[in-house]
Amino acid sequence: MAFPSSNRGQWAGRQQIGYLMQQGVDYPNCLSLAAGLVDYDTFPADLVLQATQKILTDPAQARASLQYGTTPGSLELRRQLLKHLAKLDGVSQESEAGSIDQLLITTGSQQFLDLVSQAVLNPGDICLVTAPSYFVYLSTLEGIGVELVSVDCDDQGIIPASLQETLERLEQAGKLPLVKMLYLVSYFDNPRGITMPLNRRQEVLEILERWSAKQYLYLLEDAAYRELWFEEPPPQSIYSLDQSKERVIYTQTFSKSLSPGLRTGFGLLPKALVKPVTDLKSIHDFGSPHFSQFVVSELLSSGQYEQHVKKLRESYREKSQVMWNAVSDSILTSDLAHAEQPGGGLYVWLKLDDKVCDTRFSQRLFRDAAEKHHVMFVPGELFYSDPSHPDANLTMRLSYGVQTQQKLKEGIERLANAIAEVRK
Amino acid sequence: MAFPSSNRGQWAGRQQIGYLMQQGVDYPNCLSLAAGLVDYDTFPADLVLQATQKILTDPAQARASLQYGTTPGSLELRRQLLKHLAKLDGVSQESEAGSIDQLLITTGSQQFLDLVSQAVLNPGDICLVTAPSYFVYLSTLEGIGVELVSVDCDDQGIIPASLQETLERLEQAGKLPLVKMLYLVSYFDNPRGITMPLNRRQEVLEILERWSAKQYLYLLEDAAYRELWFEEPPPQSIYSLDQSKERVIYTQTFSKSLSPGLRTGFGLLPKALVKPVTDLKSIHDFGSPHFSQFVVSELLSSGQYEQHVKKLRESYREKSQVMWNAVSDSILTSDLAHAEQPGGGLYVWLKLDDKVCDTRFSQRLFRDAAEKHHVMFVPGELFYSDPSHPDANLTMRLSYGVQTQQKLKEGIERLANAIAEVRK
Repeated sequence: MAFPSSNRGQWAGRQQIGYLMQQGVDYPNCLSLAAGLVDYDTFPADLVLQATQKILTDPAQARASLQYGTTPGSLELRRQLLKHLAKLDGVSQESEAGSIDQLLITTGSQQFLDLVSQAVLNPGDICLVTAPSYFVYLSTLEGIGVELVSVDCDDQGIIPASLQETLERLEQAGKLPLVKMLYLVSYFDNPRGITMPLNRRQEVLEILERWSAKQYLYLLEDAAYRELWFEEPPPQSIYSLDQSKERVIYTQTFSKSLSPGLRTGFGLLPKALVKPVTDLKSIHDFGSPHFSQFVVSELLSSGQYEQHVKKLRESYREKSQVMWNAVSDSILTSDLAHAEQPGGGLYVWLKLDDKVCDTRFSQRLFRDAAEKHHVMFVPGELFYSDPSHPDANLTMRLSYGVQTQQKLKEGIERLANAIAEVRK
Repeated sequence: MAFPSSNRGQWAGRQQIGYLMQQGVDYPNCLSLAAGLVDYDTFPADLVLQATQKILTDPAQARASLQYGTTPGSLELRRQLLKHLAKLDGVSQESEAGSIDQLLITTGSQQFLDLVSQAVLNPGDICLVTAPSYFVYLSTLEGIGVELVSVDCDDQGIIPASLQETLERLEQAGKLPLVKMLYLVSYFDNPRGITMPLNRRQEVLEILERWSAKQYLYLLEDAAYRELWFEEPPPQSIYSLDQSKERVIYTQTFSKSLSPGLRTGFGLLPKALVKPVTDLKSIHDFGSPHFSQFVVSELLSSGQYEQHVKKLRESYREKSQVMWNAVSDSILTSDLAHAEQPGGGLYVWLKLDDKVCDTRFSQRLFRDAAEKHHVMFVPGELFYSDPSHPDANLTMRLSYGVQTQQKLKEGIERLANAIAEVRK
């Protein structure tokens, strides 16, 4: 007899990150510009140590942090997060969020993305995504059996006219009732490092509001990289622009700005989603680790988090500049190579307008780069839900997150050599 | 327009624990014998502090613990867990598990239960459960849209003849192809505190093996309370009896034996389930908090966990005796009241063979106990997937986990008074 297995289990298997991680295993000597990990040298071990000492030597805090929490998470941390978010958005805390009940703490923002998707989308439903888009979330949606429809982007993020056209096209095809959500990374996005300007944020929100008469769409705003800006703070969130507080679902994480090992993220929910998302989280795990929540809470309230993020911005700003200089000097010298200098986040998105330099896993450039030049990038194909998108074969994501400045220079030099050799 | 929402989100809403927790909120002055929380006084704050200091002052460990881990979890902790489990089962590590790849670390054992259920069961499939059974898992199954079919129990756990009859009945109804799994709490179960003896474990396994020719059923063994024995260690796991290692799925947690706030559990998977369950976990959260895993790993390897569990056993043994004495003296004096003294775990399961004493939320006993006598129990109805089960109205679960010895005596006295008053 066959072993029992579910559709969900099979759908979840369509994860391209598995293939990417396997490449890392297959080519262990590669200098990886692929991994989206964060900088080891900036981990706040001393701050986390101070926080744990403070928590565990205070009997009341020690007991509470080691006990079960509630499913939505520590009330104290949730209070601080509302305050923190209002500060980031430059608005008053009262105008920012409906109530603390709408804020849920999760195991990284990934769990929040998964829970929301499960609460909103049935198998066969449609979610709009950008082309390109964060590939792990594309897999998350596929894991629920959701159909992905992509909307084009330019250097300001999603193109409003393309969103409008896509919705019209879906309406004509009779598929509008299946469209439930639009997903956006609104700050220094993954993979392109682009931040949507304020007017673009407003336009997108207005389009969704106009379509509401026919079909209500949620906007899922992923702000994972929001605090990693280099020169100036980015615009306020789409969430803060949503007067109704019934449209935008917002999520952010401490994985990039503090420590992924604490796995603490959070999100804000429209009222209609509070119960189903919290119910699903109860089933998933009854709540994320309470102890980590106390550590994050302590670092936020002491102001040490804010100090840490300042240092982090400086470190990533320098590293991004090192990578950018190297890419400019050795790759962008060709008219066939294009990139935008990132203003924050962890990535440089490179386009090689050159059919010889097909960036896919299966093609010569990726293999030669890994095998001969010992350098690895993430092929652009991973970020497109539609593999026939014209940019899917021409693009790659380069991360300056984990490598040192020296290694970044060396990595880009190796990549430039690999490109030059393929072009010969 | 209606806000979009999924079936999953609605199914997840059928959680009776929400109702139970609401009762706790509605009657805040109650002495709760309901909560399944663990003893605050035995939390190992000093041990966790030592472990975090050791981890965070070692640069290599500090970096690793604060970085992302892999989806299945820390390799070092997984190695130790295999060793730990072989020791509990009294077998060699080689014979115990296929490979370390089959061990997955999760956010408590609840996440493991949820992931396995999602990987094995489609909406409309059937899972066999015991009557009574752990009610949070019943909600988990309902949250996936699964049909529950219950199998009767006696004081040695699930009754083999009843399992056989249930399978025959399902076969006659043409529903056998939908039956995918049997769920059991094999040690000091929730709610009854019963441990299955060895021969019962073998019989159940043999029945499932005989039925394999017609329908392959997994056995999901939940060993959450395994280490909380009082007088002598309980028998080896059903997992260890499964020679094929393709039948039994095993899970255990550190929430009861160490700290729920670390939210660290684990499970062992048959080979066929490793990929789908790990894929689903990647979508859920990419892996449970790495930092907590390092803490648990440090406490296991130093032997401090073992020392701590010894103390914990003694504390719960004493508290269970206090509750048992109080129940014996004030409630079991009636011929219409029955209970078994627990040999481990956190619960006393009380049956009142007396129609006047209907234990349901909606009936007088629960309301009077809460409102007049300020004591709360968990009505037995929560633990039966079939509300028409003859014991569903007659039973209640009493926990000695969280209250002090003094409060336990007081709580049982109040409950005895409430029962006496209803009987008047």
